[in-house]
Amino acid sequence: MLGLRAAIEIPSVSEQEDKRDNVFQVWFPTQIFSVPTITPNTMQMAKWLVHEMESLGIEVKQKALGKQPGKDIDLPPLLIGRYGSDPTKPTILAYSHYDVQPAALSDGWDDEPFELTEKEDGRLCGRGTSDDKGPLLNWLNMIQAFQKAGQDVPANLVFCFEGMEESGSQGLADALKEESTGEFAKIDSVCITDTAWSTTNRPNLIRGLRGIMFYHININGADGDAHSGAFGGALSEPMTDMVNLMASLVDSQGRILVPGIYDDVLPVSAEERKALGEIEMSKDSLDGGINGKLLHEDQADDLIARSRKPTLSLHGIERASPGKGASTIIPGRILGRFSIRIVANMDIKKIDSLVQTHLKARFQQLGSKNELSVQLTGRGDWFFEEVDHWNYQAAIQATEKVWGVTPNITSEGGSIPIALDFKKVLNSNVVLLPVGRADDHTHSENGKYPPQYFRTVRLICFITEKLDRSNYINSVKVYGTYLEMASKNWKQ
Amino acid sequence: MLGLRAAIEIPSVSEQEDKRDNVFQVWFPTQIFSVPTITPNTMQMAKWLVHEMESLGIEVKQKALGKQPGKDIDLPPLLIGRYGSDPTKPTILAYSHYDVQPAALSDGWDDEPFELTEKEDGRLCGRGTSDDKGPLLNWLNMIQAFQKAGQDVPANLVFCFEGMEESGSQGLADALKEESTGEFAKIDSVCITDTAWSTTNRPNLIRGLRGIMFYHININGADGDAHSGAFGGALSEPMTDMVNLMASLVDSQGRILVPGIYDDVLPVSAEERKALGEIEMSKDSLDGGINGKLLHEDQADDLIARSRKPTLSLHGIERASPGKGASTIIPGRILGRFSIRIVANMDIKKIDSLVQTHLKARFQQLGSKNELSVQLTGRGDWFFEEVDHWNYQAAIQATEKVWGVTPNITSEGGSIPIALDFKKVLNSNVVLLPVGRADDHTHSENGKYPPQYFRTVRLICFITEKLDRSNYINSVKVYGTYLEMASKNWKQ
Repeated sequence: MLGLRAAIEIPSVSEQEDKRDNVFQVWFPTQIFSVPTITPNTMQMAKWLVHEMESLGIEVKQKALGKQPGKDIDLPPLLIGRYGSDPTKPTILAYSHYDVQPAALSDGWDDEPFELTEKEDGRLCGRGTSDDKGPLLNWLNMIQAFQKAGQDVPANLVFCFEGMEESGSQGLADALKEESTGEFAKIDSVCITDTAWSTTNRPNLIRGLRGIMFYHININGADGDAHSGAFGGALSEPMTDMVNLMASLVDSQGRILVPGIYDDVLPVSAEERKALGEIEMSKDSLDGGINGKLLHEDQADDLIARSRKPTLSLHGIERASPGKGASTIIPGRILGRFSIRIVANMDIKKIDSLVQTHLKARFQQLGSKNELSVQLTGRGDWFFEEVDHWNYQAAIQATEKVWGVTPNITSEGGSIPIALDFKKVLNSNVVLLPVGRADDHTHSENGKYPPQYFRTVRLICFITEKLDRSNYINSVKVYGTYLEMASKNWKQ
Repeated sequence: MLGLRAAIEIPSVSEQEDKRDNVFQVWFPTQIFSVPTITPNTMQMAKWLVHEMESLGIEVKQKALGKQPGKDIDLPPLLIGRYGSDPTKPTILAYSHYDVQPAALSDGWDDEPFELTEKEDGRLCGRGTSDDKGPLLNWLNMIQAFQKAGQDVPANLVFCFEGMEESGSQGLADALKEESTGEFAKIDSVCITDTAWSTTNRPNLIRGLRGIMFYHININGADGDAHSGAFGGALSEPMTDMVNLMASLVDSQGRILVPGIYDDVLPVSAEERKALGEIEMSKDSLDGGINGKLLHEDQADDLIARSRKPTLSLHGIERASPGKGASTIIPGRILGRFSIRIVANMDIKKIDSLVQTHLKARFQQLGSKNELSVQLTGRGDWFFEEVDHWNYQAAIQATEKVWGVTPNITSEGGSIPIALDFKKVLNSNVVLLPVGRADDHTHSENGKYPPQYFRTVRLICFITEKLDRSNYINSVKVYGTYLEMASKNWKQ
């Protein structure tokens, strides 16, 4: 606990300035804008960590990532550590991050967030306990445990500890590419511990993440807005086309209407469906804590729809032409936004072609006199990992041995971009091995949505980040067992 | 011209403060808000006008309208004048207004807007020349002309001159109701001269104005917005229902799809269609000056669609639930806005019932789990006048006699609420008798759309308000002839 206590006390907030640090502020008449900056705290955290790592015999390279884009501030370094180089063992890259989300007692925390507070019920409270200082330090705790027991660590380890994860992992993707032929050249597999269980009571391993394709529909009817009294009936109105196009994309049961879009989607096995049906889900984790109306009565159908199937959401329609915002205008130019969440094995190019073809055919059918353009403005691929791989199997076996239950193998609806980066750049199997639980409230302070979709508690009620002592202790064991099983499986 | 010159020099702007007057300003850090107020100039204009009217023998009552709603400022008075009380003549109420739109040389006027500038081409330039000081003063000029010629004015006149027309006619409707059993009790007909020709080269009389029914569609799916990655596929999304409902209202050719909505619409006669086809229209007056795409190639079809038929315009969809404005959210609650322009003889109650029934049936068909409510949030009735009435016929005959051409009888797409107020409250035939031409640029300075839909000039190019000398002179003759013909027709 000593290491964790010291780590929590360094407020290494990468996203915002820390109140206790020198922050430069710009005065505007109506508001104070605090310019986000990398605080010395992040650097201090890196320095502390290097010291801890080196004291265990880990070789550390502090990889400079240059300036923060658009700012004259150095990014915190990527810490690359090496421990062991036995050619008879697999080499596993372990990813964690040493920066944290902002936090303040005044946000409603039960205790000072940048101090470790141990509760009687076993909670270790403090910013970063679960996301991600606890999971990070446990790699060091594990090495220390092997050292104290006089045993070899069962695998070679390459650490990749970043300090900008909570601020978009700036600089990481480039560094990964650079090191793919350098420090990360001889990696056998990757283990990411920056996640938590999908529930509060049962461990799981995440094998799938959805990708996204983001679209703009532009419809141009006129150079400006028109008065609907004077011109209603005379002009071809873009809104009419837009709602028709949008209505042709998805129905009220959530089925995407673009022909062919489901063709390459991987089927869900009966086994997977059964497992999804058995996960204990709270009402909030099902409806988002916002009293959402569920499309599926059956839990397995619900979880399949939101993680293993593509979905299409219409986000909005914006006026894109100048004009007074009178409530009865005919908007002359409008922009519609929608996105498709994609899953294995959908091909972005192919899907884009299907979407474009469909929308253009529908527009043709409308016989509109307006002009249409459809643009794919953003994209991120899906992630879907081979669970039969020795790396994944090692994580499953370690979880079984330590927790005494077989973990659920789940997919998530959202994305964790670094998982895909590791997989694509290093061409390696990537296991997402959660440490904390669904109710750890890792991003709670500023109302952000947690990355895991079936978190069980309303954020508004509980905002103190915690890591359960049992998870803290057991994850040291899980890590060690994982390396042991990985080494064993890898040999076979 | 002397009277007009003096009138123009009083900047009786009802909507905004005048730069030459004491205006109180409130300082906010980033902006100066000028609090709109009734300037003493409006009061000064009323005072000047009362003097002019009384010097001609008109009995004037200055009807106080109380304070401006929400402000501690007196509204400018309604000037009610009486001239003549011969029981053998009809009594005609003439409506005009003595306030004007704002204007400044710096807005791009050719000359000082609050001075009368006579141009060699016959234009009388200055704010209010056409809207509405010229048309107002011509009633006085006409009386003076009869007096100088030693002749009786052919009808009894009741004047209703207001000072808040450019600011929403605040106080007028209530005053009308009060005086319907008082000063306006024995009115035989009404003549409104606060309009202009629909074209630049040929007089017309406006017989029809469209009404409006304004709708809100509320769709409630959740108490807040959800993350489309985490919840896309799980939740019933209001946007999907909304675009489906909206798409069921109108098609890309502008046809309203609500069953029964056209049932009571008055047919357009072959004669009217022919006349509409023959009006000289510029490109800008057809497409709004914004390069709008026309639904109808035939001009008569176009003008019928925008003035004699109902139309339905979709104005927009707004998020109505709280949440961060991320671009990939699933909006939990949304508000859709649309309006229907209605024409004679559509009944608001009946149409509302058709719309509600249609939308609810369509929603039922969608099988959505969300909640729908449809609200008629605003309404204004259509205006469609009997042109066979002696009052209208008098205006037609006067126009023919003075201008030498039969005026087009037109309908407009927008509304002039006071016309309907006069008609409904006084239960009287109301003729809209235009004085100026379509290119008088009456509301040009602040980018407002002109009330007439087929104005022929882009506002951005010409902003100097003018009244052609020929229109100024001839309207005195038109007024006199109109009274003469009205008196004659009324007797028959």
